[in-house]
Amino acid sequence: MSGPFCPLPVADEGVIERGHGGGGALTARLVEDVFLPAFGAAPSAPLHDGATLVVAGGRLAFTTDSFVVTPLEFPGGDIGALAVIGTVNDLAMCGARPLSLSAGFILEEGFAIAQLRRIAASMGRAAAAVGVDIVTGDTKVVERGKGDGVYITTAGIGLIPAEVAIGPAAVRPGDVVLVSGDLGRHGIAIMAAREGLGFEPPVESDLASLAPMVAELIEAGIAPHCLRDLTRGGLASALVEIATAAEVELRIEASAVPVSDAVRGASELLGLDPWYVANEGRLVAFVAAADAAPALDILRRHRDGAGAAMIGRVSAAAGRGRVLAETIGGLRVLDLMSGEQLPRIC
Amino acid sequence: MSGPFCPLPVADEGVIERGHGGGGALTARLVEDVFLPAFGAAPSAPLHDGATLVVAGGRLAFTTDSFVVTPLEFPGGDIGALAVIGTVNDLAMCGARPLSLSAGFILEEGFAIAQLRRIAASMGRAAAAVGVDIVTGDTKVVERGKGDGVYITTAGIGLIPAEVAIGPAAVRPGDVVLVSGDLGRHGIAIMAAREGLGFEPPVESDLASLAPMVAELIEAGIAPHCLRDLTRGGLASALVEIATAAEVELRIEASAVPVSDAVRGASELLGLDPWYVANEGRLVAFVAAADAAPALDILRRHRDGAGAAMIGRVSAAAGRGRVLAETIGGLRVLDLMSGEQLPRIC
Repeated sequence: MSGPFCPLPVADEGVIERGHGGGGALTARLVEDVFLPAFGAAPSAPLHDGATLVVAGGRLAFTTDSFVVTPLEFPGGDIGALAVIGTVNDLAMCGARPLSLSAGFILEEGFAIAQLRRIAASMGRAAAAVGVDIVTGDTKVVERGKGDGVYITTAGIGLIPAEVAIGPAAVRPGDVVLVSGDLGRHGIAIMAAREGLGFEPPVESDLASLAPMVAELIEAGIAPHCLRDLTRGGLASALVEIATAAEVELRIEASAVPVSDAVRGASELLGLDPWYVANEGRLVAFVAAADAAPALDILRRHRDGAGAAMIGRVSAAAGRGRVLAETIGGLRVLDLMSGEQLPRIC
Repeated sequence: MSGPFCPLPVADEGVIERGHGGGGALTARLVEDVFLPAFGAAPSAPLHDGATLVVAGGRLAFTTDSFVVTPLEFPGGDIGALAVIGTVNDLAMCGARPLSLSAGFILEEGFAIAQLRRIAASMGRAAAAVGVDIVTGDTKVVERGKGDGVYITTAGIGLIPAEVAIGPAAVRPGDVVLVSGDLGRHGIAIMAAREGLGFEPPVESDLASLAPMVAELIEAGIAPHCLRDLTRGGLASALVEIATAAEVELRIEASAVPVSDAVRGASELLGLDPWYVANEGRLVAFVAAADAAPALDILRRHRDGAGAAMIGRVSAAAGRGRVLAETIGGLRVLDLMSGEQLPRIC
């Protein structure tokens, strides 16, 4: 029916809203409606926030993230460390050993070179701590008022061990759901810094590389069935996405989900739900029930996994994917955020 | 002598100027003074605009570019096609077969989704034409006035054939210098679109993938000693950088450098030197003198190489690298641009 005389009503499609960048339902719609049809179905297996490539006899993970966090420097980190660790964590979530990063800088005219130097130094330190090299990059400058100091886009390559197959497809009824620590600190730290809220004690970002704990799990023979770092959209969005993709029902015990008193108090003050607040050093892992105890032991051995906890399980119920949280008040069905709870959090 | 009581005078370092994004001497200083010391010396062999990685028994090329061109759509292309082809060309300049791309989008609140769809479609078409997949991506949104519609950062991975070793180190006295076509069209097309100059006939960007002609050269056994796409800074900057890195003297015959009458006229009007104007579908190749004729034959067989020409040679003179252009008026020594001739050209 369509032809040159029946143009699509593209002018009616609207404009970009802040929620399109929130990592929730609006972002998903943009990707599904605009980008995927335009780029065609990728022949390689698509992963959340990454792709797997078979190259030269090995399997590579390949991922990218753009970082527009504001403020550029915040308690517990800065855009530079975030740009390195965020991409390293995406590789780790594919089960990959991070190898190399690229970094593209979009600088605003008038940005202080002293601050750029601090941010670059932070990137270097973060990369060295993880054992990854920043091997290539690019720099562009836009006029005053067309940027916001600096935006950084990193891409990363990692090597996936032969035996690893991580993803929603590997999730099975009976699997247990683990998180690597208390939730919501990154988002609250950013909001507090942005709004000038002086929480006492101050909330620091949880920004941390998840690669070492994932590597140790894999080395110990505990191949997680699915891994996800709990960034934009937080724990709740990650669980809903995985349940939907895996077509399983998750039962989460609300009282087992670790949230610090400081984050809980700040979230109430800001009208936020900590389960939806972004983290930058927290993961959820789906493992076989028999692996739960040794996996928790490994996570807790790492400084950034000391607060690891088992929070739920994959139920035996059939049917379409959904996430049920068991609370004192009864069962709550979790949804994706429709827009963006916290803009420019990463 | 330095210590905690002797802080560096970082506050005196100044601010980002437009020229820091121009690809000339200011950009080079930023990379050398700020980024490289912060990131540490990369253990892999650094290449211009790309890095080589040895992974799983093969050699990979890895590169990234951020694109901030304005206007977003211009005669002969748009930011989407540019983001795909620009990164593919960087891979081709490493002698690599492009495999996969990532794409990070920084969208400004209020940007028309219809235009984003056009740009995404253009990316898809460009990728399909080159035979490369866009396999992973990310989307962020910034507030109105903190962006300019859309910025795109692509990264790319390519596979380098075992026999290929391309770079300034392979340049030898006696090598000839080839270009793949007439110069300066991309920069002039952008400037004309931006300034509303209606050249007749209109100048279209030379935007084109250089990967097919490079692949054919390599398949024919003509391994170029050095390749460079002539983007920001144009022919002159590329030649100066290669001469400096290779520590050789280049003699360029000015009358042999192809520039169309339209570009020459527009350049005079705009006060630009076409040798410094950006291209997005032109390369310079250094090949052994014996390979000059077959290499030119191969380049000219491609639509985007029809205007290929031999423009000079590597002289036998010793000493530090420099580029001499032989003109009617005598010898001219070429320099890097100190700032940015044309802002936001790519």
